[in-house]
Amino acid sequence: MAKKASAVKQTPRALRVMIEKVTPEIDGGAFPVKRITGERVVVRANVFADGHDEVKAEILYRSEETKAWQKIPMRSLGNDGWVASFLIEKETAYFYTVRGYVCEFSSWCHDLKKRVDAGRDVTVDLQIGSAFLKEAASRATGEAAQKLLQWAEEFAAPKNVSSAIKLALGEELYKLMDEHLDLNKSVLYPKELKVNVERGKAAFSSWYELFPRSWGEKPGEHGTFKSCERILPEIARMGFDIIYLPPIHPIGTAFRKGKNNSTKAAPSDPGSPWAIGSSEGGHKAVNPLLGTLEDFRSFVKKAQEHNLEVALDIAYQCSPDHPYLKEHPAWFKWRPDGTVQYAENPPKKYEDIVPFNFETDDRLGLWEELKSIIVFWVEQGVKVFRIDNPHTKPFLFWDWMISEVRKDHPDVMFLAEAFTRPNIMYRLAKGGFTQSYTYFTWRNTKKEFTDYLTELTHGEVAEFFRPNFWPNTPDILADHLQYGGRPVFVLRAVLAATLSSNFGVYGPAFELCVNEPLAGKEEYTDSEKYEIKNWDWNRAGNIKDVLTKLNKIRRENPALHMTRNIRFCNINNDQLLAFYKATGDYSNIVIVIVNLDSRHPQSGTLELPIHEFGISKDRPYAAHDLLTDEKFIWQGEKNFVELKAVKSMAHIIRVTKELHREQDFDYFL
Amino acid sequence: MAKKASAVKQTPRALRVMIEKVTPEIDGGAFPVKRITGERVVVRANVFADGHDEVKAEILYRSEETKAWQKIPMRSLGNDGWVASFLIEKETAYFYTVRGYVCEFSSWCHDLKKRVDAGRDVTVDLQIGSAFLKEAASRATGEAAQKLLQWAEEFAAPKNVSSAIKLALGEELYKLMDEHLDLNKSVLYPKELKVNVERGKAAFSSWYELFPRSWGEKPGEHGTFKSCERILPEIARMGFDIIYLPPIHPIGTAFRKGKNNSTKAAPSDPGSPWAIGSSEGGHKAVNPLLGTLEDFRSFVKKAQEHNLEVALDIAYQCSPDHPYLKEHPAWFKWRPDGTVQYAENPPKKYEDIVPFNFETDDRLGLWEELKSIIVFWVEQGVKVFRIDNPHTKPFLFWDWMISEVRKDHPDVMFLAEAFTRPNIMYRLAKGGFTQSYTYFTWRNTKKEFTDYLTELTHGEVAEFFRPNFWPNTPDILADHLQYGGRPVFVLRAVLAATLSSNFGVYGPAFELCVNEPLAGKEEYTDSEKYEIKNWDWNRAGNIKDVLTKLNKIRRENPALHMTRNIRFCNINNDQLLAFYKATGDYSNIVIVIVNLDSRHPQSGTLELPIHEFGISKDRPYAAHDLLTDEKFIWQGEKNFVELKAVKSMAHIIRVTKELHREQDFDYFL
Repeated sequence: MAKKASAVKQTPRALRVMIEKVTPEIDGGAFPVKRITGERVVVRANVFADGHDEVKAEILYRSEETKAWQKIPMRSLGNDGWVASFLIEKETAYFYTVRGYVCEFSSWCHDLKKRVDAGRDVTVDLQIGSAFLKEAASRATGEAAQKLLQWAEEFAAPKNVSSAIKLALGEELYKLMDEHLDLNKSVLYPKELKVNVERGKAAFSSWYELFPRSWGEKPGEHGTFKSCERILPEIARMGFDIIYLPPIHPIGTAFRKGKNNSTKAAPSDPGSPWAIGSSEGGHKAVNPLLGTLEDFRSFVKKAQEHNLEVALDIAYQCSPDHPYLKEHPAWFKWRPDGTVQYAENPPKKYEDIVPFNFETDDRLGLWEELKSIIVFWVEQGVKVFRIDNPHTKPFLFWDWMISEVRKDHPDVMFLAEAFTRPNIMYRLAKGGFTQSYTYFTWRNTKKEFTDYLTELTHGEVAEFFRPNFWPNTPDILADHLQYGGRPVFVLRAVLAATLSSNFGVYGPAFELCVNEPLAGKEEYTDSEKYEIKNWDWNRAGNIKDVLTKLNKIRRENPALHMTRNIRFCNINNDQLLAFYKATGDYSNIVIVIVNLDSRHPQSGTLELPIHEFGISKDRPYAAHDLLTDEKFIWQGEKNFVELKAVKSMAHIIRVTKELHREQDFDYFL
Repeated sequence: MAKKASAVKQTPRALRVMIEKVTPEIDGGAFPVKRITGERVVVRANVFADGHDEVKAEILYRSEETKAWQKIPMRSLGNDGWVASFLIEKETAYFYTVRGYVCEFSSWCHDLKKRVDAGRDVTVDLQIGSAFLKEAASRATGEAAQKLLQWAEEFAAPKNVSSAIKLALGEELYKLMDEHLDLNKSVLYPKELKVNVERGKAAFSSWYELFPRSWGEKPGEHGTFKSCERILPEIARMGFDIIYLPPIHPIGTAFRKGKNNSTKAAPSDPGSPWAIGSSEGGHKAVNPLLGTLEDFRSFVKKAQEHNLEVALDIAYQCSPDHPYLKEHPAWFKWRPDGTVQYAENPPKKYEDIVPFNFETDDRLGLWEELKSIIVFWVEQGVKVFRIDNPHTKPFLFWDWMISEVRKDHPDVMFLAEAFTRPNIMYRLAKGGFTQSYTYFTWRNTKKEFTDYLTELTHGEVAEFFRPNFWPNTPDILADHLQYGGRPVFVLRAVLAATLSSNFGVYGPAFELCVNEPLAGKEEYTDSEKYEIKNWDWNRAGNIKDVLTKLNKIRRENPALHMTRNIRFCNINNDQLLAFYKATGDYSNIVIVIVNLDSRHPQSGTLELPIHEFGISKDRPYAAHDLLTDEKFIWQGEKNFVELKAVKSMAHIIRVTKELHREQDFDYFL
């Protein structure tokens, strides 16, 4: 009996309110959502109580730096749904939760009004209200307390009933009561949900990947950090802001791969940069052919002068020559014949690569060392890391490593190169990766793009997964690039750069429209992974101008700085993909129409939600193609568009404003 | 540094497996799912690991009575999804969770096969396998350990490589290894999810509601428990198994309601049974006009003899005359003028009803007393309670009260009479109500039924919410019943009794097709709530035969004992609603086709998934209409059906078997 009685006692009196289905809440709150400053977090919840009393709900949120919660009232959506949003203002973690309460005073106001409207005597009701005011006064101080007490007395014995009613239903009292709620009667959602806030580049970045060794002073010479300094201005001119280098470490010689991934390397073959480590050092060393650590630091600085950030490739694997094998044999698996366990996908062997054994008994040592590699390069000035195949290492390692690094270096970013099943890619993102590679490369039709972008930008995935779209990589020369020629390179560049706010290319293979595959494969023939290339960077047919224009358009249009804001448009042609992105206040609206058919002209009627844009049906408005500088006058929701193919693959149109007067039309001159 | 190191140490070595999106899991496991014995719980989860090793998943489950978990392997659905189910065998709570593990041995087998197929030398690989066997042997005992060790030696130095390979890839070894897994390498989902198991009637019941006072010995006499005993055989004959009585307690006289809810009662008016309590007692007393407590107990026993269970209505509210008002004034709200706060929905007043103040400072006293009311009636032999307006009392009260009562009386059932917003109805169900009233009464079109039943039977709602469909109640005479006449009463009876495995009617108003409304309202005129009726139970036009047949069909066809198993069928006529229900093994398949148009004949082509039923396209099969006893020979997926309306509103067809031989057709004679 004592036990039962205490069960009742433990039930706090105020818990009449239920708070359910709070979103975003990733895996029950196990993982944070991601934002940059200037973005909002839209919080929804079902909040309800028994009975007929009025219920209210609010978000409580705070940055990690402050203890005090700020509150924002939630708006009722009907059927117990509530919504509100808060703005991320500082580059620090935020927390949010939901509070609900039964508002007796609101219920009383509501009923009082109905009684008054029905002509009922409300003397007793005013006396009931008086008690609420007195109670609130006990929680107030100074003038507020005085006012509440004074009005409580007035309600208890009104000199003038109609003026008391007016006061009771007035805004001033309502506000005062709202400021002195009885929080003992409120219910707090029991979880404090977290927002990880990263720097702006997490959400908006343009990556350019290159192999430094192909940029020697003279054709045939091994490139160096020094020799690469001369190409920085051109990459900056094209508008990229991250220059990403494949591994820069000493390359193993044991089982070194030759041209086209052959298992026999010629003495002159430089090897794959992903076969990391030799007698010259491992993950914290620089390939002497590229220069010294000092040269690398200079290169990083030089890049900064061009507003380029250097990103490094981190591949947690070793060549058989890596010093780790001798120094820490326990970090690897050894076969019964005494040889080390190389990477394999039976019957294929990758004998030039030795994976770490993440389940080693010296896990503590291994994990700390792997973390220290990142910290080492952070100390050389690198803040962006592209992680090779993270899905073949334990998730908990990444969770731990990323959070540890970010404790001291919150501005470090990680891009996950995991081309694998969606749940695995999403789990890596939840665990802390800033950005992720995607299936973009294998999406081709209007339906595929619409479905995939909807998956990425709606619902919970959008809260933690930041896609980074790559038309090509050193590993992937997609089918469409092999057969479609220059128009398809343009098409894929436009799609990557506008569908996603993060995009990247592997150059100069991309802008030079290199398209020879290994027979039957989605890979480059004579891949730069295994040999030094001599690029003729300005050769005819290159699409540097397109990339330059795309990056300029991206930079100048804040609507393109997000991915989550994409909305697809109806257009009555399956070869035309149309979508728009807008800033929250619709001050910048960009409409993209892409001809997915690279060979034939396509046209259709584009439908735009101009009411949302704040554009009237009755006035023409300006549609400015930022790619071609053409200007159109559109009116209403439906407008005709045509794309000729080959020479004109896409419109990127900024919708500006309604044209009201003669002089507005000067815009078009 | 110490802190960081310990962060690694805390990461258990085995946690390579991720277990996500386990279903069913109601509100993160805060609430149990519901089952009866014989039902299955289908558990799904995403289970995956890093890398390329083989992953396995299994359900662990146990009844509350046993500590040991039973395991059932989950089947891969692709894309990391896994599924399995377990059977509820005992009427006790069950628990379940999910375990995943990386299976090194399976991965090794898999790779070994590929190596052998490619003609590679596998001597070293067999030695690697040998280590797995030795490890497993250390976890085994007796013969198993011996065998594993023996084979481990064989693999380490095979006398005959090809026989060693055969052994390695054989079923015997696989089974042995599976039985001696290294559970240190498995990951257990951290929640033990609960199944509340109730008795069979929780899922399958036929309710008949009646006002005992209308069944006096002679017309005009107040009925008694004694006088009602004579009508039990007829209710049993109609096939109902629960007889539900509105409140049987003394009725207050203060503000007693007269006929048609008038605020002035004539001296002869019996009052509403929901105005509970007078000087003659309260919720634990019996209205003396109905007899004594002893009479009630006899009535309950008599009902049991007819396989009828008596259900009581529990309305936690008082008439102003209820003894509680004097004994426990703290349980009510008092107005400043000294009067008690009656129920109201301003400007309407319900002065005959006084609600409890659940937030009273004497909450302990009130809540315990309210619970004791249930216990009191349980002690009189009642195990089924229909709870009046539970949504106007705190959810946490119900959570507590129901769980407390069920601790001592696990066979007690609660039906929630909450006609309110879905989230609230669902919250009450999650908190423990066995069954719930629904919106069935206001669903009319094919789309409405399909949408609503899909909401109730798919996804998480089906796991905790057991609908109970009522075509009418003393409070509700739906529009369609007012205007459609007998055919609509038949239609609604068929729908309620077949769409839902729990259904009920308020009789004899229902089977007598009483349809006079209060003008403009969905309520009965001259409602039995406020007066004693003299029912001519066998008057012409009654549909007792329909109810009797429906209950017989329900009883004889286990497919109709569930609601969750409903599947809608395509039929090319919007006035025809078609669905089927089948037992898990398809030994009982019932197809229901209803003509929603009560006035006109309708026909269409019904599509059935006969492949699922195990019926071939090439053979005719038997379709037996259990309502009319008509027999059809159908073949293939599409068959023509016609319903004439008025006289034939529905088919309830049992599909039996393929007709193979001459004598099979005797079935139709």
